[in-house]
Amino acid sequence: MKPHLSLIVALTSLTLLAPAQAQFAKAEDAVKYRKNSLFVMQQHWARVGAMAQGRVPFDAKVAQDNMDVVATLAKLPWAAFGEGTDKGDTRAKPDIWKEPAKFKDAADKFQAEVLKLNAAAKTGNLDNLKAAFGSAAPTCKACHDNFRKD
Amino acid sequence: MKPHLSLIVALTSLTLLAPAQAQFAKAEDAVKYRKNSLFVMQQHWARVGAMAQGRVPFDAKVAQDNMDVVATLAKLPWAAFGEGTDKGDTRAKPDIWKEPAKFKDAADKFQAEVLKLNAAAKTGNLDNLKAAFGSAAPTCKACHDNFRKD
Repeated sequence: MKPHLSLIVALTSLTLLAPAQAQFAKAEDAVKYRKNSLFVMQQHWARVGAMAQGRVPFDAKVAQDNMDVVATLAKLPWAAFGEGTDKGDTRAKPDIWKEPAKFKDAADKFQAEVLKLNAAAKTGNLDNLKAAFGSAAPTCKACHDNFRKD
Repeated sequence: MKPHLSLIVALTSLTLLAPAQAQFAKAEDAVKYRKNSLFVMQQHWARVGAMAQGRVPFDAKVAQDNMDVVATLAKLPWAAFGEGTDKGDTRAKPDIWKEPAKFKDAADKFQAEVLKLNAAAKTGNLDNLKAAFGSAAPTCKACHDNFRKD
């Protein structure tokens, strides 16, 4: 007995989509993963920002430690925006999947700024940190403005 | 006018509790932070486990990359179990705050195993990975069994 054509088509589509989804057992896990990694990153980012903006005393070691965590986490969320993860408990805008190149560009810009901010933190110099933070922060906002619902 | 004694006591308690809480704007953020960092860590841990247990083909680079993420995340959740974070949307058992030394010991054991597993992953040898994973996995379970509600 031959499998029905629609089944073959469905299985082929599943295979084509697999790479983006393969790391997650289900779409909800991908949504949860990207939200969770972004939240944890934001907590550490905010600690660096508080120093860069003079709201708490500068501590070079604390800035470096927090930026190390940010640098690791900044790589993670993007793999979790695969096909089929545009639904559920998410503020992600459809534009992420409609304009993937634009979204990738925004994510790449942010990650490039994180690398610079991490390098600045490692110098142990507050002025370097302030300058790099001032350059990096707008790349968070740009992505939120364009790709996240309020 | 002298401040009332109870106010002084309250403010002193607040100061004493501050170190554990200081990193988080509010208790809910601490709860969210520890849950989120544990979830993200678990996702990467599971990818290593799938290889260690022969459920997916071994890829030394993938194992190393995932263990690098686990190694960073394994340090994070513990600072978010401060005083006043035993309520809300959490499965954390009261024992965490009743027996802090026992909880710290469980967290320390897990982190020590993560370091060993990370070193094993860096050897690029599947047998090393299997052995280290077999030793590390029970430290997750022990902490969950003792300190997490079902």
